[in-house]
Amino acid sequence: MNPLITLRVPATSANLGSGFDAIGMAVSLYNIFKVMEILPRGEYKIEAHGEGSRELSQPKANLVVAAYEETCRRWNVEGPGFSLWCHNIIPLCRGLGSSAGAVVAGVLIAKHLTGHEADDDELLREMTLIEGHPDNVAPCYLGGMVVSCWDGKDLRYVNLPALPPEVLCVAAVPDERVKTSDARDALPKEVAFSDAVFNVGRAALLTAAWATGKWDYLKWGMDDKLHQPYRSKLFSGGDVIFSRVQELPECLSVAISGSGPSVIALVRGTTHRVAEAMCRTFTEYGVRSQFFVLDGSAQGARVDLSMELPDALKNVGVK
Amino acid sequence: MNPLITLRVPATSANLGSGFDAIGMAVSLYNIFKVMEILPRGEYKIEAHGEGSRELSQPKANLVVAAYEETCRRWNVEGPGFSLWCHNIIPLCRGLGSSAGAVVAGVLIAKHLTGHEADDDELLREMTLIEGHPDNVAPCYLGGMVVSCWDGKDLRYVNLPALPPEVLCVAAVPDERVKTSDARDALPKEVAFSDAVFNVGRAALLTAAWATGKWDYLKWGMDDKLHQPYRSKLFSGGDVIFSRVQELPECLSVAISGSGPSVIALVRGTTHRVAEAMCRTFTEYGVRSQFFVLDGSAQGARVDLSMELPDALKNVGVK
Repeated sequence: MNPLITLRVPATSANLGSGFDAIGMAVSLYNIFKVMEILPRGEYKIEAHGEGSRELSQPKANLVVAAYEETCRRWNVEGPGFSLWCHNIIPLCRGLGSSAGAVVAGVLIAKHLTGHEADDDELLREMTLIEGHPDNVAPCYLGGMVVSCWDGKDLRYVNLPALPPEVLCVAAVPDERVKTSDARDALPKEVAFSDAVFNVGRAALLTAAWATGKWDYLKWGMDDKLHQPYRSKLFSGGDVIFSRVQELPECLSVAISGSGPSVIALVRGTTHRVAEAMCRTFTEYGVRSQFFVLDGSAQGARVDLSMELPDALKNVGVK
Repeated sequence: MNPLITLRVPATSANLGSGFDAIGMAVSLYNIFKVMEILPRGEYKIEAHGEGSRELSQPKANLVVAAYEETCRRWNVEGPGFSLWCHNIIPLCRGLGSSAGAVVAGVLIAKHLTGHEADDDELLREMTLIEGHPDNVAPCYLGGMVVSCWDGKDLRYVNLPALPPEVLCVAAVPDERVKTSDARDALPKEVAFSDAVFNVGRAALLTAAWATGKWDYLKWGMDDKLHQPYRSKLFSGGDVIFSRVQELPECLSVAISGSGPSVIALVRGTTHRVAEAMCRTFTEYGVRSQFFVLDGSAQGARVDLSMELPDALKNVGVK
């Protein structure tokens, strides 16, 4: 059976160095979601493969379904149920935006199964409301690098290009999780004025360098005093991996991905020494890890609609 | 007599909203410096017109001469004296970068009178060492908008375009001064983590919006919680001028220029209501003020060399 809707959503790395809560990028690691059949309202069937396939097979625990239903509710439209086939490649709860990918998929399925007219701004606002912050959903949906600000009600974002072909992203993913509450509690309530000013300058430099292709400035631009010095203590090897990787000349910069524990390095040249240094560090601390060598994802979320979708919707009485 | 060197240096507005210590731009208000004659080493004659002409006529108090001599010393080159004609239009000590303009002029005169080979990076580093920070000298020298970071030793900067023709800068300059030490003392030692994160996001948004021409985002991008809430209390009317100007729809954003007391507004459309609201506020607080309606300055510092310069230098034994 051909899918009615096929979605491909990229992994994302947010809190990029200095750009805490503001700067994230999409990378070429994708989850695939396929809406196979329209079902009566409230009915869902899920066939999950790959990462976390057992927990994600339960419709009540499935974030795509939850985001879909919340979106329909907020748009005040009646969406049908559906059967969903998923292949999850993005590791779960490791700071690579797997939940944001599910939210983006759920909102996009709602758009296409209900025919609700929504532009990018409205879709992103909806995704942000569900996810709680725009840092991952914005680059996941738009692709490339996104600077986003959210005041709890309104969203402003600017989309910059993806990493160029000569800069690769090595992501090392350890086999442990950091609790979101621990990651939050590790941050200080107050910071030195000079640290705040440091990050302001570096985040502006990172953004300007990214916009103009000055990749040599990534090390300065991604340097950070606001979150990584605190959060790198939360996972094994976190406090030494930075210095080890940064001393390799091919490494442009290194950062905790999201709130960790994955670590990403932006690399120009060969990637194997960087990947090896990252995974070896985790191994020394007794933690297994895997790594991915990724490109930037320029396209972000991609939706393919089957010609048969309108007929399928008619059959269950949806316009 | 024709000048040997003619320099035109723009006014600059630094600490642009969220971009404290990092983001500045050049605007179309220029001081003119002319090196008229080569004099023996250590001898200077100054003819100053315009703003502060009396105090600037004393060679020992003249910042162009001081920057020239400091540059020659650091480059370890022997530069001749000279007679300097200046026309200063940029108001002194009002946060519009008049001292940075003098430093840029002094360093550029050193380059051309000594023949010392220096690229932009070295010139800017020298200017920054003399001025103490890059925020004004970088946009003054390069033009446009500049994001700069300085760690006391090394400098990184990215040059973005000037304001486009449809966005004007209204600068209101009150007839009072803010002491640099007061401006510094007004800043807190510690800030809330949330305020730091707020400015990080806004400074990145401002930079991304500037790089991509999304001028509607200036209001969000220039919003600030790190310095203006403290410093706007240091000058008459500072704490009300923001809200009054910002409510005008043609006003894209408003900011303290440098450490004040000048206030700039970026305006799309007619400028008279914005200028009037700014100056009226100062008047209500018993302070006289003037305003300028300015463009962005794309070129930055401009140097014109006379054909006669090499001969003039030979006559005093400089290579």
